[in-house]
Amino acid sequence: MDTHIPFRYEQLAELIVGMIDNGALAPGTRLPSVRAASVQHRISISTALQAYRMLEDRGILVARPQSGYYVAVTHRGGLALPSTSRPRPRASTVSISGAVAALLEHASNSKLVPLGCAVPNAMLLQSKRLDLALARAARQHGAHYNVYCAPRGELLLRREIAKRAMRVGHVLSPDDVLITSGCTEALTLALTAVAKPGDTIAIESPTYFGLLHTLEVLGLKALELPTDPARGVDVSAFASLLDTESVAACVLSSNFSNPLGSTMAEADKKTLLALLAQHAVPLIEDDVYGDIHFGRERPKPFIALEGGSNTIYCSSFSKSLAPGYRVGWIVAGAYAQRVMERKLAFSLSSPVLPQVALAEFLASGAYDAHLRRVRRIFEENLARMRRAIEASFPAGTKVSQPAGGFVLWLELPKGFDSRSLFDDALEQGICFAPGDVFSASRRFRNCLRLSVGSAWNDRIEDGIQRLGQLAQKLLAR
Amino acid sequence: MDTHIPFRYEQLAELIVGMIDNGALAPGTRLPSVRAASVQHRISISTALQAYRMLEDRGILVARPQSGYYVAVTHRGGLALPSTSRPRPRASTVSISGAVAALLEHASNSKLVPLGCAVPNAMLLQSKRLDLALARAARQHGAHYNVYCAPRGELLLRREIAKRAMRVGHVLSPDDVLITSGCTEALTLALTAVAKPGDTIAIESPTYFGLLHTLEVLGLKALELPTDPARGVDVSAFASLLDTESVAACVLSSNFSNPLGSTMAEADKKTLLALLAQHAVPLIEDDVYGDIHFGRERPKPFIALEGGSNTIYCSSFSKSLAPGYRVGWIVAGAYAQRVMERKLAFSLSSPVLPQVALAEFLASGAYDAHLRRVRRIFEENLARMRRAIEASFPAGTKVSQPAGGFVLWLELPKGFDSRSLFDDALEQGICFAPGDVFSASRRFRNCLRLSVGSAWNDRIEDGIQRLGQLAQKLLAR
Repeated sequence: MDTHIPFRYEQLAELIVGMIDNGALAPGTRLPSVRAASVQHRISISTALQAYRMLEDRGILVARPQSGYYVAVTHRGGLALPSTSRPRPRASTVSISGAVAALLEHASNSKLVPLGCAVPNAMLLQSKRLDLALARAARQHGAHYNVYCAPRGELLLRREIAKRAMRVGHVLSPDDVLITSGCTEALTLALTAVAKPGDTIAIESPTYFGLLHTLEVLGLKALELPTDPARGVDVSAFASLLDTESVAACVLSSNFSNPLGSTMAEADKKTLLALLAQHAVPLIEDDVYGDIHFGRERPKPFIALEGGSNTIYCSSFSKSLAPGYRVGWIVAGAYAQRVMERKLAFSLSSPVLPQVALAEFLASGAYDAHLRRVRRIFEENLARMRRAIEASFPAGTKVSQPAGGFVLWLELPKGFDSRSLFDDALEQGICFAPGDVFSASRRFRNCLRLSVGSAWNDRIEDGIQRLGQLAQKLLAR
Repeated sequence: MDTHIPFRYEQLAELIVGMIDNGALAPGTRLPSVRAASVQHRISISTALQAYRMLEDRGILVARPQSGYYVAVTHRGGLALPSTSRPRPRASTVSISGAVAALLEHASNSKLVPLGCAVPNAMLLQSKRLDLALARAARQHGAHYNVYCAPRGELLLRREIAKRAMRVGHVLSPDDVLITSGCTEALTLALTAVAKPGDTIAIESPTYFGLLHTLEVLGLKALELPTDPARGVDVSAFASLLDTESVAACVLSSNFSNPLGSTMAEADKKTLLALLAQHAVPLIEDDVYGDIHFGRERPKPFIALEGGSNTIYCSSFSKSLAPGYRVGWIVAGAYAQRVMERKLAFSLSSPVLPQVALAEFLASGAYDAHLRRVRRIFEENLARMRRAIEASFPAGTKVSQPAGGFVLWLELPKGFDSRSLFDDALEQGICFAPGDVFSASRRFRNCLRLSVGSAWNDRIEDGIQRLGQLAQKLLAR
């Protein structure tokens, strides 16, 4: 029995949600200003603001600077969310490499409509200022930077990364940060630091196929966890599994995970952290999408809630700014020594000039302006994608509704074969990611991931429409 | 019994060596021109040239463009060569990481006289043209290159690398080449592609400590092979070991190996290749110093003699041009698929802009001009270093005499403790690499490596002199 008496801000929030649900507030409508709402509902300005912000965090409202709050265009379409995954409660070996290589080959084919690859488009990202910073560093100080940099990476960049961590409440010294070759190297360093071949790693299901590929190459087993498209990993199911399965580590992406787009609630994150600490299972956090949040506040990463005693944090600039620079980082806390040893053994150090350019770009404040721009573009992209899916895909198609990132996860009726759709789509010049590459046990055959990392255009709109029609045909067969 | 009747060019070569040995031709003396020698000795010009070139290849003569042939300044000092190593004929686990990390920390301390780190100095390497190529690529095409490049790496660069391979007789397609994060990543990819934890890898002894570190981190055992400072690995000793030891792979650096500076004769390379093929032991070749040859011709790498059916070739631009760019490559032949899978898992792909700049630099011909310059500097450095050692180190100090690269290996009398010397030297602000970090079994305590990767200067000259005096004192204790 719920005995919680709603706060006044919760009452206002419920009122707004009700008006959206019954159509009184259409998607895209501007809401009364905070001041007007406080007068109208006889509450304080801060209470009204609290209600708006809560709805913003849930993706129901969208804040536009200097303009006010709007009903999110993505809210409450006719599309239901995909169901929570129910993978086999047992660790399995991973055998995915062939599929990943094949997919990557198609995904990099520029002749195909690019719905396959979760990489932001270079033209969309384009940041002249970053490029100029690199050009300047090379021209003016090329010889000076033609050195093996400190194994940890350029101090200037580590300092900027530490500063940004502070903003989400994670106190960090530059020396806690190790620069890597993208998040991929960070994850490999973390996995090899905490696990040996044959060990079991708990992961989301579905999860990023690159992680599955890495697990396979490292000879690690995967324990796929029940995962909800909205709330992320099912913590109580994980708790039961930990009673029977021996788990060497756990890799989670709690903010706008790829491909589900789920975000764990802060309370769930804390419960999970306590659970892992209790079982002495280290958590490897992949936070590569965390900066692409549509809500006002960046959701906290695990490490900010926990301080880093049992968490290894991995991220990069590849999803938000510079895939071509291959710069990521790792904060390994208790495992820092082991991670550093592996960095020295695997790649020694990272190239200096790209780090120097990134440091300058971050220090100038340009990264924040850049993020504000791409977040709005990606949010708009996902809204348009959902509308296009609703218009063309078979009735009953379920679609994720992430509050960040730039991918959607689609679940079609049981028995639907996304591999057949993949073959049909390729013939029509369209690429996407079929569901089975997101699972070690090749589940999700009736699912698929669509990614829009470029500015919206007719080719993409048309591609999704044709894909939907192909899916309809396939289902009718 | 040697029944070989010497060719006329061999007779001339012997005559010259005799004159050098009896002092008639002093180090640095200019020889008669090829034309003059042909008249004087009544032989053809091509025969005279053949004699001069053979002596050049042996490091006895030095050719100066537009000037003629000179007696090498390094030839026949009072310094004997170190002895051939005789490691335990058994595989051992490696435990070196702590020592490597400590050494790297000192080696990167710019306050110390830099004899410790085998990295060419940025100011010496300085290649404005490469830096400008990077600046231009970033400024003009930054957005265009802000992408994950093809997993193999930039085609432009792979093409240049393939062209250069052709010059040493190795026919290669650009698609045979995979770009890596320096030679370190190349070696890690190769090792993980052919071996699993617990396997044994045969290596030179002494060998590069970075390789030992990588073996340790990957859980691989080391089988140290008897290695001669002039001729490299003792092939017949290796043959006997292969009869009893199970070896998963062999990592060799046959051209100016680090730290010995040895170069295997082509005949020995061929014998070794046949031996490895017979035992089905893959050869991982580290050819990172191959371009820094003092003789006229670049010695052939294994892969050029064998074609690549059983050889994985690893190299980089770090020792000759751009340590700060972290660009290396691997040619994995039969193991290409496994290596590519590991590249995807470990670091996905390498940064694009540094590759584009390097490709432009190579294509322009600037790399060849650059190499000619640094080869002469390094050759001169080694000659000066040998003289400084002869002048100040204890009598009986043996020194390697490499025909390429920029490091020397010193062997002091048995019982000498280079660790104590290391501590004394640090106090005096001098860094070098003590011998024991070059062996999995911590041999070579009486040895040390000196590296001069910068332009010669008084600080270095003085550093070596003081180091020699410290060694004398230590020995007198």
